[in-house]
Amino acid sequence: MSRVSVFRREHFNAAHRLFNPAWDEQTNDQVFGKCNNPNYHGHNYELEVKLTGEIDPATGYVMDLKKLSDIIEENVLEKFDHKNLNLDVSYFVNLNPTAEHIAVVIYHILRKEIDVKLDLKIRLYETERNFVEYPA
Amino acid sequence: MSRVSVFRREHFNAAHRLFNPAWDEQTNDQVFGKCNNPNYHGHNYELEVKLTGEIDPATGYVMDLKKLSDIIEENVLEKFDHKNLNLDVSYFVNLNPTAEHIAVVIYHILRKEIDVKLDLKIRLYETERNFVEYPA
Amino acid sequence: MSRVSVFRREHFNAAHRLFNPAWDEQTNDQVFGKCNNPNYHGHNYELEVKLTGEIDPATGYVMDLKKLSDIIEENVLEKFDHKNLNLDVSYFVNLNPTAEHIAVVIYHILRKEIDVKLDLKIRLYETERNFVEYPA
Amino acid sequence: MSRVSVFRREHFNAAHRLFNPAWDEQTNDQVFGKCNNPNYHGHNYELEVKLTGEIDPATGYVMDLKKLSDIIEENVLEKFDHKNLNLDVSYFVNLNPTAEHIAVVIYHILRKEIDVKLDLKIRLYETERNFVEYPA
Amino acid sequence: MSRVSVFRREHFNAAHRLFNPAWDEQTNDQVFGKCNNPNYHGHNYELEVKLTGEIDPATGYVMDLKKLSDIIEENVLEKFDHKNLNLDVSYFVNLNPTAEHIAVVIYHILRKEIDVKLDLKIRLYETERNFVEYPA
Amino acid sequence: MSRVSVFRREHFNAAHRLFNPAWDEQTNDQVFGKCNNPNYHGHNYELEVKLTGEIDPATGYVMDLKKLSDIIEENVLEKFDHKNLNLDVSYFVNLNPTAEHIAVVIYHILRKEIDVKLDLKIRLYETERNFVEYPA
Repeated sequence: MSRVSVFRREHFNAAHRLFNPAWDEQTNDQVFGKCNNPNYHGHNYELEVKLTGEIDPATGYVMDLKKLSDIIEENVLEKFDHKNLNLDVSYFVNLNPTAEHIAVVIYHILRKEIDVKLDLKIRLYETERNFVEYPA
Repeated sequence: MSRVSVFRREHFNAAHRLFNPAWDEQTNDQVFGKCNNPNYHGHNYELEVKLTGEIDPATGYVMDLKKLSDIIEENVLEKFDHKNLNLDVSYFVNLNPTAEHIAVVIYHILRKEIDVKLDLKIRLYETERNFVEYPA
Repeated sequence: MSRVSVFRREHFNAAHRLFNPAWDEQTNDQVFGKCNNPNYHGHNYELEVKLTGEIDPATGYVMDLKKLSDIIEENVLEKFDHKNLNLDVSYFVNLNPTAEHIAVVIYHILRKEIDVKLDLKIRLYETERNFVEYPA
Repeated sequence: MSRVSVFRREHFNAAHRLFNPAWDEQTNDQVFGKCNNPNYHGHNYELEVKLTGEIDPATGYVMDLKKLSDIIEENVLEKFDHKNLNLDVSYFVNLNPTAEHIAVVIYHILRKEIDVKLDLKIRLYETERNFVEYPA
Repeated sequence: MSRVSVFRREHFNAAHRLFNPAWDEQTNDQVFGKCNNPNYHGHNYELEVKLTGEIDPATGYVMDLKKLSDIIEENVLEKFDHKNLNLDVSYFVNLNPTAEHIAVVIYHILRKEIDVKLDLKIRLYETERNFVEYPA
Repeated sequence: MSRVSVFRREHFNAAHRLFNPAWDEQTNDQVFGKCNNPNYHGHNYELEVKLTGEIDPATGYVMDLKKLSDIIEENVLEKFDHKNLNLDVSYFVNLNPTAEHIAVVIYHILRKEIDVKLDLKIRLYETERNFVEYPA
């Protein structure tokens, strides 16, 4: 049988600030540097969603990437795009919005929407030079 | 011993149409949407071929990528580039030319041409935002 | 006064064939080579629309790029995306769909939709390595 | 004599919000949509600085791009990178931080730092699909 | 009449060293820094050739980009690709191989090969962040 | 527990020559072709460093990518950037500087600098179309 991975790439823009509320300002500055700006900064995030499974012999698809795009749009982009991750996105009320945490959050959001027969992996680019993958 | 993966990226342009001849037109339109245009549409496909194996101590190569490029040129690009996949490429007479199927076909073409000591994986970009990998 | 250029990039996929119906097949093959495949081939076209004009002091925009994107979507992508340019797009019934001609056609389509106070230029990528601009 | 253009590309990340304080919230929402989020959103800005002038026969340079990079770093990136453009960058206290306005501001900052014999042009990418140039 | 610009992008790899033989080593180090390594360093150069002219009504082309590619291959890539610009390329025996000078040299090489009715411009990328254009 | 991979991309420019000193010139030319130019050629190398491990709950980071960038700068770029790999970089005195070997060397340099709890993988682009990964 032919297991194939299919990938869909989407993007969203968001503001965020990195800090640990349990630490004082000096420690946050030492650890997070410019990313701790209390007025926020922002990124063009590129999101790659990877699904792995069998090809459906009737369609030749592992999954229709148009449908996958719609699921990402409704469940991720609607909540994240043009938002302040710290203030507008409930998942980050008590979670520092690092690229690592954003990828884990998106994984759990999409895991509920995607057929369990398909393996799921998230790659998230914060910049062209900094990016993360979950699960590893 | 040092197992290393080497990658060569090539490209080809082709027309195709997605449909299942066992279905009526309405079902094909529902499933494949714009991709079911009976007059075809097309893509600039980007093909990444990944080989994994030991470094040859005499050359420092896993495989000479110039030779790999020539093998891809002769066995894949000659047959696929500037073609209509449905009409001109024999593999797709009875196989829907989705990105998944194209990747599987290219894998089997190249598997015969590449030393069995080397593992082979295909990544195929249909657009910058839609791509597939085989084997998973 | 501050004249600024703003650019919006969109994409569409299409099939096409290059040939001159006034010529015999041999001449068409000599001139157009693989691009003369009677069964068509295709591309992922990248379209860059450039507008030049004064910044509106109320908005800070030369033009709202979301509105420009909508105009391109309705007037160009709806007609060109996932189409066979030779068979499905009326502009090319008697016009060879080279990148040069496609850019000129898109220019004239958009020129009617864009405020005359704004200068318009089209850049069209047929591949990453072949592209055109109109007007020069 | 040989007039040549040289380009240096740099990047910065920032948060911003688009709105006109003279308008009510409803009008701002109609005009700026998601970009009017009062909690801000953000971008990875790519900045291209173009200088045009004669080649210095002693160096073969129009200008040493390392020196140009340092000038951009000190005068633009230090002020803009990882900032909230509306709150942290003085130029935007009374100026809506659209891509058009950011490009004009950067032009005037750099114009004072660059030899008057060299023509200066700014290209600013807000996303890969939306960008601006000043002067036009 | 329709004047259109057409662009062809090619690439070559080369080693080079920047220095002025009229200067002592200390001055060369001050001016050219790491680029003055006497053992050379190197780049993947990306070359964009732009031609501007009328569309030929018989072909729909300003110029066949396949033919332009062949002209660049024979006249530029054959001489520059996988070479040491200082030692292997005659144009740079007495000319410092800065990006500016390489672009001017390529312009003059190609100017002799391209129909005089077509305007010619060269863009040369030394890296993704440093590039030049001639004529300005 | 959440194992995540984080990636940092850096770049360096270098000259090199491929050859096997145990072979005569004719054999080296047959095997390495243009890459055997005794005067060297060069590349813009893009280096991707991938680390895999647990997210630190205090920071939300697997590793601070700014610190990773500093480690790469000090231990790799300082030694490789703007160098002749064959002549200036001690690792290649007796090792052919193929992309495979460069990746293995960089792996061993960085392995000593990175926390043993983190898995390490290197991807090295010699050009956009030729790249390698170690370990496989």
